[in-house]
Amino acid sequence: MFDSIAIVGATGAVGTLIRQMLEERNFPYEKITFLASERSAGTKITFKGEDHTVELLRPEAFEGIDLAIGSTPDPVAAEFCPWAVERNCIVVDESGYWRMDPKVPLVVPEINPDAALNHQGIIASPNCSTTQMVLAMKPLHDAGIIRRVIVSTYQATSGAGVQGQEDLVAGSRAFLENEDYKYQVFAHPIAFNLIPQIGSAKHEGYTSEEMKMVFETQKIFGDDSIQVCPTCVRVPVENCHSESILVETEKKITAAEARELFAATPGIKVIDNLAAGEYPMPADCSGDDAVFIGRIREDLSCDNGLAFWCVSDNLRKGAATNAVQIAELLVRSQAAV
Amino acid sequence: MFDSIAIVGATGAVGTLIRQMLEERNFPYEKITFLASERSAGTKITFKGEDHTVELLRPEAFEGIDLAIGSTPDPVAAEFCPWAVERNCIVVDESGYWRMDPKVPLVVPEINPDAALNHQGIIASPNCSTTQMVLAMKPLHDAGIIRRVIVSTYQATSGAGVQGQEDLVAGSRAFLENEDYKYQVFAHPIAFNLIPQIGSAKHEGYTSEEMKMVFETQKIFGDDSIQVCPTCVRVPVENCHSESILVETEKKITAAEARELFAATPGIKVIDNLAAGEYPMPADCSGDDAVFIGRIREDLSCDNGLAFWCVSDNLRKGAATNAVQIAELLVRSQAAV
Repeated sequence: MFDSIAIVGATGAVGTLIRQMLEERNFPYEKITFLASERSAGTKITFKGEDHTVELLRPEAFEGIDLAIGSTPDPVAAEFCPWAVERNCIVVDESGYWRMDPKVPLVVPEINPDAALNHQGIIASPNCSTTQMVLAMKPLHDAGIIRRVIVSTYQATSGAGVQGQEDLVAGSRAFLENEDYKYQVFAHPIAFNLIPQIGSAKHEGYTSEEMKMVFETQKIFGDDSIQVCPTCVRVPVENCHSESILVETEKKITAAEARELFAATPGIKVIDNLAAGEYPMPADCSGDDAVFIGRIREDLSCDNGLAFWCVSDNLRKGAATNAVQIAELLVRSQAAV
Repeated sequence: MFDSIAIVGATGAVGTLIRQMLEERNFPYEKITFLASERSAGTKITFKGEDHTVELLRPEAFEGIDLAIGSTPDPVAAEFCPWAVERNCIVVDESGYWRMDPKVPLVVPEINPDAALNHQGIIASPNCSTTQMVLAMKPLHDAGIIRRVIVSTYQATSGAGVQGQEDLVAGSRAFLENEDYKYQVFAHPIAFNLIPQIGSAKHEGYTSEEMKMVFETQKIFGDDSIQVCPTCVRVPVENCHSESILVETEKKITAAEARELFAATPGIKVIDNLAAGEYPMPADCSGDDAVFIGRIREDLSCDNGLAFWCVSDNLRKGAATNAVQIAELLVRSQAAV
């Protein structure tokens, strides 16, 4: 058990979910501290029936804290993680800043739990679009060795934070009333539209979000030979990212075998009956920690290909749930010692 | 010139657009007749400033008509096309019923215009999701021979007809007001949601819409060796289908070459500047006859792969425009004789 824990970015969309999960999952601790930047410090929150005041995120805030779970923008994480590490506080960090640092393990507990224990103070949790994909890949990779992944995403506005969700609702209302609306976070209207860009232009025509799916996947599996070709698209859906995924494996995996492999994997739920109109849809998967898989079928264009549809709550398994699971891993490893 | 022409299904969403295009493009004829099934026969419409009454679709309606352009449900097309052909009326048919009939050419005028002239009375126009994809494939296939296509679609509700569009608007309003709404054409809520099924369960886990993209592509290019793996998804967008497409070619095509090839193809417009946030989006492409292409980039997962994003007005090039272009082809071929 860690005596003193902290939530960094405690008032954000993911921070709020992390708090909720620590309550629900009865995460063990003696003392809990909530930290946020100037804008939110001073906010009153209730946790396990007790009132807390959110404290200012500053170096000294980490004195005496053993474990911090952080969900902040990248520049904030760049700054605060070293403050914590210098004070012997381990950080599970949800931001994108540390993920590709060679000294920082990037962990999905169902895939590479051992990597989490081999940390130097910071453990990173992957990008939301990566996490659900790699969890879906895991049983297929174990059974048939994945050589290549082609993925097209359908990403919800909650991935752009609370303001992204507000933009969708307010933009949709305005559209239906034939009124103008000035978007806060999206460069183009997202209501009743699609934006085929998430993140910035990064590498040879690919966006930063797309390159995360390439590099993070290779790092999590510890295998740079897995080739990934992603297309990331923002869709007018409030919550839950969906992905159309095609994998090519060294050893053929039939649709029936894949269905069994998925069903036997902790963290995955299979909903797959096309004739009955049953498959995962974002509106149904919100609020669930699982990665949902359906439309499982063999590729028509390649002998060893397998296609499927994957939906998951990007704020949960894509963010808060995975971070809390990493923290639980650390607690269990302490208990084992 | 055809002396007497008819529009079958003249009051539907596509039929209305076909009428508009015949006006705009000054399609030549002496006499025009508008036909529809019982529900819409008797409707008054204005065409080129003159009032017309929509007549009942029945065998005798085709007496003396030389060319009909039809946009009706499949069972209606199954019935009326033979009525027309028996009376020496050529039919350009937008429905899915005749497309895969070996006696019926399936035509995209930019790709296989000669096939249109080799008809036995019926000429079919492809499914909307196929048409924009094959037009995008055409210059790449000519330059490098396409062996494989992996496509994930983002299809607008207008593809499900006028009621599909109504469902999206009414369903979205209800969602925002926290009210119930009973969908007319969708089996699941489409407002703020995604439905990864278009059409019925058809073949080995693929839907009828997906299999259309496979078989129609092969037929249009006259090449059964082109392998296609599609995933068709309905998205909460009013009009214009979008597609994330990856092609593998025998001969490598660079992104720069592809951009030039696309730009030189009649019917294609390139919008491709990721750093400036420029790419096609459905909200911007509605009402345009072109197929829009952006996000052109080389595949990160295969040497001879090329990825791009393709948007087109599914009611126009995906339906009305293509049918009218086929009819114009027939007119020009007569003039040439």
